[in-house]
Amino acid sequence: PHIPYRPPRKSDEEILQKSREYYELMAKRRTVRCFSAEPIPQEVLDNIVKTAGTAPSGAHTEPWTFVVVQDPQTKEAIREIVEQEEELNYTQRMSRQWVTDLKPFATKPSKPYLSEAPALVLVFRQAYSWRSDGKKRMHYYSEISTAIAAGFLLAAIQYCGLVALTSTPLNANARLRDLLSRPANERLELLLPVGRPHKETTVPDLDRKPLEEIMLKI
Amino acid sequence: PHIPYRPPRKSDEEILQKSREYYELMAKRRTVRCFSAEPIPQEVLDNIVKTAGTAPSGAHTEPWTFVVVQDPQTKEAIREIVEQEEELNYTQRMSRQWVTDLKPFATKPSKPYLSEAPALVLVFRQAYSWRSDGKKRMHYYSEISTAIAAGFLLAAIQYCGLVALTSTPLNANARLRDLLSRPANERLELLLPVGRPHKETTVPDLDRKPLEEIMLKI
Ligand SMILES: Cc1cc2nc3c(=O)[nH]c(=O)nc-3n(C[C@H](O)[C@H](O)[C@H](O)COP(=O)(O)O)c2cc1C
Ligand SMILES: Cc1cc2nc3c(=O)[nH]c(=O)nc-3n(C[C@H](O)[C@H](O)[C@H](O)COP(=O)(O)O)c2cc1C
Repeated sequence: PHIPYRPPRKSDEEILQKSREYYELMAKRRTVRCFSAEPIPQEVLDNIVKTAGTAPSGAHTEPWTFVVVQDPQTKEAIREIVEQEEELNYTQRMSRQWVTDLKPFATKPSKPYLSEAPALVLVFRQAYSWRSDGKKRMHYYSEISTAIAAGFLLAAIQYCGLVALTSTPLNANARLRDLLSRPANERLELLLPVGRPHKETTVPDLDRKPLEEIMLKI
Repeated sequence: PHIPYRPPRKSDEEILQKSREYYELMAKRRTVRCFSAEPIPQEVLDNIVKTAGTAPSGAHTEPWTFVVVQDPQTKEAIREIVEQEEELNYTQRMSRQWVTDLKPFATKPSKPYLSEAPALVLVFRQAYSWRSDGKKRMHYYSEISTAIAAGFLLAAIQYCGLVALTSTPLNANARLRDLLSRPANERLELLLPVGRPHKETTVPDLDRKPLEEIMLKI
C-alpha cells in the first residue's frame, strides 16, 4: 500500500539558504586521529545510529548492523587485533606503492585512538539474510547501501559537534567478527572511533578539489 | 604538514539536542519517484555537490565525479537508455526471485521521473587516476568512499528540503558513460533524480527497523 508524501513546500530562497548553511557545516568536517577520552551520552550514540538507519537501501533491505563499543576491555581487544593485522599489512602484505601513498597521512600500525576514543562504531554489512521459509534472501547493493548509511552516520556526527575517524581495518574482518560474535552473513565495512577531538589534535593540511573538478553541468 | 584542529567544544546538552534534531529531520526522508518539474536554482545544485565533495575518502583520493543534467534532451536520452536496459533486465536478465522481491516497490521498466525531475545527478566513481609521472594510481576503497559521498549528497538534499530517488541503473553503465563522455577510469554508481516532490506523490508504506535490530551495545 502507498501513502501520500507531503513534506512542506520550500521556496527557492529557503532551499538556497539551507544549502549554503549545510555546506558550511559539512566543510568543517575533518577526520580526527586523536581523541579526548570524555564519554558521550548514550542517547547521542543511539540517535546517530538511528539516523544512519534512516538511509535508503536497495529493495529496503536495511542491510546493516552498528556495533557500538564503549567497554574498555573490548576496545583493547579490538585495538590488539587491528594493530597485529596492520603490522602484517605494512611489513608483508601491502605494495611499496601503497605504503608510499599513505605517507602524507602519517598512519602507522600503532592505533592508540582505538582505546582512547570513548566509542568505537563498527559498521557491519549483511550480505544476505534468511527468509521465513528458510531460503536465502540476497541483499542487492548491500555495499553501497551500507556505505550510504555510514555517510548518514558521519553527517550526524558532524551535525551534533562530534568527530570521527573513518577507517577500514584491512584483513581484520574475520577476527573482529569472531570477537563480537557477529553471524556469518555479516562483514565488517568500517570502524569509526567517535568522540570529541583531543584538545591538541592536529590534522593533515589538505585541500579539497574545487567544484569544477568534481562537477560537470549539462 | 599538520595543522591544529580546534572546532568549538560542545557540551553534552548541546550534542544531545543536536543529535535529536538531526534524527528527526532525517527520519522524514523518503525516496520519491514522482517529481514536480519546477527547476532548482543552480547554486543549490552547486552547494549539494560541494557538500558531497567534503566526504572523507581513502588516502584523500576524492574519487568521484558528479554529472548534473538539467538539459531536457540529455535527460530524454538518459531515460531512453535506462528504460531499454531495464526492459532487458526485467524480461531476460533478472532472476524470478528478484522480480518478486521488487514487487512491493512497484518499480517497472518505464521511468518517467528521468525526464520529469528538474535535475539528474549521476554519481561516477574513479577506480584509478594517472600520476604526473604517467603511472596508474589506484584509488583504494573508491566504492565505499563514493557511496559515503553520495550519503552526504542525500543528506544535503534532505537538509535543504528537496527530495531524491536513489537508483542504480543496472547494465546501463557503458552506454551512459559514452553518452556523457566520461573517461574509462569512471564507472556509474548511482543515478539520482533530484527536485521537489510532485504534489500528489505517494510512497510505499514502509517501516524502518527499530534501533534494537540495528544496534548492538558493548
Ligand atoms: C543502492 C540503492 C539502489 C536503489 N535502487 C532503486 C531503484 O533502482 N529504483 C527505485 O525505485 N528505488 C531504488 N532504491 C530506493 C529504495 O527502494 C528505497 O531506499 C527503500 O525502499 C527504502 O525507502 P526510503 O528510501 O523511502 O526509506 C535504491 C536504494 C539504494 C540505496
Ligand atoms: C573508506 C575510507 C577508508 C579510510 N581509511 C583510513 C584509515 O585506515 N586510517 C586513517 O587514518 N584514515 C583513513 N581514512 C580517512 C582518510 O584518510 C581521510 O578521509 C582523507 O585523508 C581526507 O581527510 P578528511 O576526512 O579530514 O577530509 C579513510 C577514509 C575512507 C573514506
